[in-house]
Amino acid sequence: MKDDLLRNIKLTIEYDGTAYHGWQAQANARTVQSELKKVIEEVVGHETDLTGAGRTDAGVHALGQVANFKTDCIIPVDRIPFALNSLLPHDIVVKKAEEADMDFHSTFSAAGKTYKYLILNSRFPSAFSSSYMLFHPMKLDVGKMQVAAGYYVGTHDFSAFKATGGSAKTTVRTIWKTRVEKNGDVIEFRVSGDGFLYNMVRIMAGTLLYVGIGKLQPDDIPEIINSRDRKRAGKTAPPHGLYLVEVEYQELRVES
Amino acid sequence: MKDDLLRNIKLTIEYDGTAYHGWQAQANARTVQSELKKVIEEVVGHETDLTGAGRTDAGVHALGQVANFKTDCIIPVDRIPFALNSLLPHDIVVKKAEEADMDFHSTFSAAGKTYKYLILNSRFPSAFSSSYMLFHPMKLDVGKMQVAAGYYVGTHDFSAFKATGGSAKTTVRTIWKTRVEKNGDVIEFRVSGDGFLYNMVRIMAGTLLYVGIGKLQPDDIPEIINSRDRKRAGKTAPPHGLYLVEVEYQELRVES
Repeated sequence: MKDDLLRNIKLTIEYDGTAYHGWQAQANARTVQSELKKVIEEVVGHETDLTGAGRTDAGVHALGQVANFKTDCIIPVDRIPFALNSLLPHDIVVKKAEEADMDFHSTFSAAGKTYKYLILNSRFPSAFSSSYMLFHPMKLDVGKMQVAAGYYVGTHDFSAFKATGGSAKTTVRTIWKTRVEKNGDVIEFRVSGDGFLYNMVRIMAGTLLYVGIGKLQPDDIPEIINSRDRKRAGKTAPPHGLYLVEVEYQELRVES
Repeated sequence: MKDDLLRNIKLTIEYDGTAYHGWQAQANARTVQSELKKVIEEVVGHETDLTGAGRTDAGVHALGQVANFKTDCIIPVDRIPFALNSLLPHDIVVKKAEEADMDFHSTFSAAGKTYKYLILNSRFPSAFSSSYMLFHPMKLDVGKMQVAAGYYVGTHDFSAFKATGGSAKTTVRTIWKTRVEKNGDVIEFRVSGDGFLYNMVRIMAGTLLYVGIGKLQPDDIPEIINSRDRKRAGKTAPPHGLYLVEVEYQELRVES
């Protein structure tokens, strides 16, 4: 690549994670990163070092994953989504391409992320959402789930909400905002923060489910956080209800 | 089966048609009817003559397909959806079971049907809807499509909106109501009537697309209907945007 022509391209990507072994490239597994990298290299004509903001697990979806790569290819930035989408499979769509500062790094520059978790709370499942929402036919107390989710907000050691296997140096994270809403039969848990430990959102969602069925009370949440004991929190909710909604790259205020 | 215990069970069924060669049972093809029939027979313990209200094509979806079968099985009617759903694949869901009069026949008793056709009208496709909406990135004039859809209402010979291959005795149908609405990036065309010829809704949708892009004017619709000439109408829109929404079994008034 010619250094003086080098540009740093930031992509915003939507994907249906159902058919992929997560974001991160792995040997002998179809992943979103490897599909995207292959198509980018086909378009720009050279190898790239594509990095992404969040390592979504197998079955997890994204509405606004962010990734970046450097290239000396002269294709206009606003044409990049069209060029990539014409070659990508239907379940991966590049929604935006922007030219970023050369020191922009989708992983390390990220200031925060927003995730949502969807629960279908109805008598019968939906033929269309078995891969897109957790189906839970029993009644859930949404009011209690709302109160419980409020306790996640703040700067805490989230060891109780972390699966083994992550590589984070510290287990302290700041949650800016949470929301639990019911629209029709769909309960949406939305959470924004400066970072998330391995499986943290899915454990938060599983713990809210325990509150919803009455197995835990909202007031138990602060104790569970303080215990730093993974066994005190709820089960890890399955991956297919989870969506990476947005990655933020500016300094953000605590809103709640 | 014991005749004095015989009940006529009416089912309301939702399915994602993506993985099926349509509703109707066929040799050597996976269809919704054959999957459902197999599961019903497993639950009731005898062969059944399952019939459905509408023969949806391959890739077409249903929110409220109706089917019926007769059985002397003593399972309570309100348990039937749970029994069937526990054995059905995730993309077919029985939403309701009711005991109907013995002379009820899902096909012949049907007084009308409602379909909807979904178009995603946005710059980029969605990673989640390639099998559930027609993607059309160019601007569509929704106002003109609304006017055009209004001309479908009434009792007409719809030969111009019929694919070859149907088995209907008459090509006259009464359309009660049509609606074109845009919510966000999604345009929904909804149509209710006493019956539909083969591919009729998809040709209606394809003709509205021609109006939306300016290739036809709303005022052309009455002429196209009167011509009874299939070549005058638009292309047959692809199956994956189409949904059988509801089947009605009472006498219905013309509403529009």
